[in-house]
Amino acid sequence: MSKKEELQLEKIRHSLSHLMSMVIIKMYPDAGLGVGPAIENGFYQDYSLPEPISSELLPKIEKEIKKMIRQNIKFEQHDMSFDKALKLYKKDPYKREMIRDLKKAGEKKLSFYRSDWFENLCKGPHVASTKEIKQDAFKLTKIAGAYWKGNEKNKMLQRIYGIAFNNKKELDEYLAKQAEAEKRDHRKIGKDLDLFVFSDLVGKGLPLLTPKGSIIRYELEKFITEEENKRGYLRVYTPDLARLELYKQSGHWQHYKESMYPPIDVEGENYMLRPMACPHHFMLYSSRLRSYRELPLRYAEIVRQYRKEQSGELSGLIRLMAFSLVDAHIICRPDQVEQEFKNVLELIQYNMKVLDFKDYWYQFSKWDPKDKKKYTDNPKSWRETQQLMKKILDQLNLEYVETEGEAAFYGPKTDIQIKNVNGKEDTLFTVQIDFDMPEKFDLNYIDKNGKKQKPIVIHRASIGCLERTMAFLIEQYGGAFPVWLSPVQVQIIPVGSHHQKYAQQVAKRFQEENIRLELKDDNETVSKKIREGELQKVPYLLIVGDKEIKSDSVAVRDRKKGDLGPMKTKKFIAQIKEEIEKRK
Amino acid sequence: MSKKEELQLEKIRHSLSHLMSMVIIKMYPDAGLGVGPAIENGFYQDYSLPEPISSELLPKIEKEIKKMIRQNIKFEQHDMSFDKALKLYKKDPYKREMIRDLKKAGEKKLSFYRSDWFENLCKGPHVASTKEIKQDAFKLTKIAGAYWKGNEKNKMLQRIYGIAFNNKKELDEYLAKQAEAEKRDHRKIGKDLDLFVFSDLVGKGLPLLTPKGSIIRYELEKFITEEENKRGYLRVYTPDLARLELYKQSGHWQHYKESMYPPIDVEGENYMLRPMACPHHFMLYSSRLRSYRELPLRYAEIVRQYRKEQSGELSGLIRLMAFSLVDAHIICRPDQVEQEFKNVLELIQYNMKVLDFKDYWYQFSKWDPKDKKKYTDNPKSWRETQQLMKKILDQLNLEYVETEGEAAFYGPKTDIQIKNVNGKEDTLFTVQIDFDMPEKFDLNYIDKNGKKQKPIVIHRASIGCLERTMAFLIEQYGGAFPVWLSPVQVQIIPVGSHHQKYAQQVAKRFQEENIRLELKDDNETVSKKIREGELQKVPYLLIVGDKEIKSDSVAVRDRKKGDLGPMKTKKFIAQIKEEIEKRK
Repeated sequence: MSKKEELQLEKIRHSLSHLMSMVIIKMYPDAGLGVGPAIENGFYQDYSLPEPISSELLPKIEKEIKKMIRQNIKFEQHDMSFDKALKLYKKDPYKREMIRDLKKAGEKKLSFYRSDWFENLCKGPHVASTKEIKQDAFKLTKIAGAYWKGNEKNKMLQRIYGIAFNNKKELDEYLAKQAEAEKRDHRKIGKDLDLFVFSDLVGKGLPLLTPKGSIIRYELEKFITEEENKRGYLRVYTPDLARLELYKQSGHWQHYKESMYPPIDVEGENYMLRPMACPHHFMLYSSRLRSYRELPLRYAEIVRQYRKEQSGELSGLIRLMAFSLVDAHIICRPDQVEQEFKNVLELIQYNMKVLDFKDYWYQFSKWDPKDKKKYTDNPKSWRETQQLMKKILDQLNLEYVETEGEAAFYGPKTDIQIKNVNGKEDTLFTVQIDFDMPEKFDLNYIDKNGKKQKPIVIHRASIGCLERTMAFLIEQYGGAFPVWLSPVQVQIIPVGSHHQKYAQQVAKRFQEENIRLELKDDNETVSKKIREGELQKVPYLLIVGDKEIKSDSVAVRDRKKGDLGPMKTKKFIAQIKEEIEKRK
Repeated sequence: MSKKEELQLEKIRHSLSHLMSMVIIKMYPDAGLGVGPAIENGFYQDYSLPEPISSELLPKIEKEIKKMIRQNIKFEQHDMSFDKALKLYKKDPYKREMIRDLKKAGEKKLSFYRSDWFENLCKGPHVASTKEIKQDAFKLTKIAGAYWKGNEKNKMLQRIYGIAFNNKKELDEYLAKQAEAEKRDHRKIGKDLDLFVFSDLVGKGLPLLTPKGSIIRYELEKFITEEENKRGYLRVYTPDLARLELYKQSGHWQHYKESMYPPIDVEGENYMLRPMACPHHFMLYSSRLRSYRELPLRYAEIVRQYRKEQSGELSGLIRLMAFSLVDAHIICRPDQVEQEFKNVLELIQYNMKVLDFKDYWYQFSKWDPKDKKKYTDNPKSWRETQQLMKKILDQLNLEYVETEGEAAFYGPKTDIQIKNVNGKEDTLFTVQIDFDMPEKFDLNYIDKNGKKQKPIVIHRASIGCLERTMAFLIEQYGGAFPVWLSPVQVQIIPVGSHHQKYAQQVAKRFQEENIRLELKDDNETVSKKIREGELQKVPYLLIVGDKEIKSDSVAVRDRKKGDLGPMKTKKFIAQIKEEIEKRK
């Protein structure tokens, strides 16, 4: 899209928000107006209304807006003094506060847009006339609560969202994409396939994995544990709690406090739910003297981490109050850091392949030299470490995006970024080089000559947070997981009740091979059972009847390829076992 | 020991405490005297002193006591009025408080014991004369801090412990047993074998498992997960946090508050670190309608649980601030509960066999009808459920001890009890029948006739808390773990530097079979390496030199059987693999 087209869309979206407010004010003359910006794909406007409104009202508002569009209403910009504006909004505390804020911010005058009988404080831009807006290219989508100024201590307003495009075709395309994304939304699939649930009594952002969802998580844990063990990682178990002192020494308390839970007072001592596991692993390292011969030490742990999120930001398995990071800290000598960093990236690339993640990119996340609050203040080490990371990334011929102000507080990161089905970008995995913590915790090793030296630390998450990775996998596969991740790997469906005994014998053979199965021996028709199995996205449905009994076989219905006809049971077991073992 | 002998020992111990106080008061005339009872194996006495004393002083105090014993000092009991006693102790606030407490408790008079110049408020009994005490049959053992009245809000006093027996032989036997227990103490072995560490910065009662200790835990997890999966358990993952509301509904807050961490306030909502996982599993159960056909549902999870302990009670891996319970909740129909309970006991018995626990016994832990605070108030259900449990235990022909007032607040328990190396009794595993929670959480299933019914819940811990079980295993094996649990399963020791290449080839063959090994290729003598391997309690040391290279073999040194001579490498690998797989 050209800059010009973008600007035109912004005008349309601002103007629609303006028109919507006209409708609302006709309905509620005393409505207060909060913010109402143009956003990606559309716009929203916050209202303070005398009663809660429901989304059933949206078509009616849309109809009124369309009526105005057809009237070719003109928008005219004019400036106004602060005093006059305050008088205009004498009944609207929100607009008055906005005006005072603008004054405080040093604005000299206020921009207003007038159309017909309505004028509205707005920077714009707007279209010149509603002629420029296509009445079939917009839609009001939903109503949600929104705190005034985004602060949960303030009053909650009612926000109406709309989407708007240049023409109907664009709108339809967007809606179709949305519908597909909704179908793949991990929250929906999680419910349909009974993978996880939430409970009001347990609380927001604290998912409970059902037995089926737990199988996926367990398989992911098993996969990564085996893979990391092969690559020389050492598993450790450390507690989820620590004294506040630990996080003061690490700097988490100074740089990361807002994301931490408040301290828990036990016998006058403050304990914290850990935001990260690194300091714990450093305590293991420094529990005894280390020789250069012991390094690198690669401490790996699946760590339950706690992060305070605003309840409004919690979402499915992506944004949680507590999550499980597949974490590791590699403590190595400076001469080992390049090789170790490369090994980590290789492991991550391997994992991306096994997990079928294709549309990802690298982000080289650097420090912001001006932000002294967010980052450890040690410019020399920042520059050196960033140079080192850049050098390694270049040696590996990786394409990457550089971003300032996205580093960890203790060092630069290489983030593996991905977009979810809704197009929202997220960090999936991360590798970080840390020059800061070895100083803060006085980590040492004794070199060849008997002298104390500082090691370097690599922080890394090889398959990220298990919950988040699960969410991405659910969306990527639309619930149709590869066999090794499928909660139910085969369903055995006897044609009639006299085939049940054989079905049970077949089931036993699968059980002995640790293949996860369901035996559908209830009183339903075969076609209904097949339909149910397909809805549950079971990879293989195995139908058994007279023919199969005679030939010691199963009629295979492949989720992807459809009906494959009969196959010897033994052969099918060998085939599915290979598929599982190779994680195909 | 006869009642008479027991009484005599009690007299000796009381009298020794009395004599010790005489020595202390000679040293510190203004010493305050706290409590000073006879205890198992000895006695102690609390003192308020003007300075901290060290254990180096103990031999000197012992010497003074012995001197008095030789003087044949007599002990005489007499009564005293409260007023006179308060006057006597006008400088000792502790004795004065004790006296006032006795008065409040309704005592009519005070008992004193006099010997020589010293008289002491004491119920006794005492010996008639120090003639009855053998001066070589007692010993002062240690000094520790102790809060006045055991309350951490009060002043800390200095407590001197002693042990005392009838004669020197008994004392020596006790000391020898103690020395053996100390050698086996999991805290000592944990340090010597580098299995776990504590960190002041992380906090008391929060152990960090090193890579070696983590292997033991990982193997235990793997063992029990596989075993439970085989037996039809369903793995789940639920969060360590929940809203306070959940524990109000379950009753934990009402019955169990003292052991819970204080609430954590996030956005005005109180979250709790979970004391138990049962309510979480009930939330999974009630997330959808259940049919009688689905039951029993056996939810299994390795749960990190949080329990507030007084810091003075924290000990090694036994008493912790957070621990990992191998937990499960079986939700079943009333007609299934007997079979499920039996299956659980069978699983536990199997685990006891695999883990080599032999000296255990069953305790049938019942409710205390009088304690309305500790237990759910539902006498009818208590009686029925206890009858049911008793019936099952009797059917199984199990010998068990019945104990009142040891049930969970929601139902009776069958506890598997064990003594540690110090003779302290502890509950290792537990099975509980719960009639209470299904009511509280309105758990239901639809029966054959389409009617709602209440299920019954069995709570169970199949191998207990992993940390505690580890502690018992460490002590039971004295660090010499069976091969499947050994952090290092074989050590390969090349005789000279020209055998290193072969040693590496051998090592690779073991690695490919996932056998945990260490290759000792540093510049030490073979005998020193063998000694180190033995100290580390490695099950097999494999020495390789010229002879072994020629015959493709390894010279096996078995931890138990000693030198076994050379064995074909292939044969040894097959043998050790079988040992590992069968968890021998």
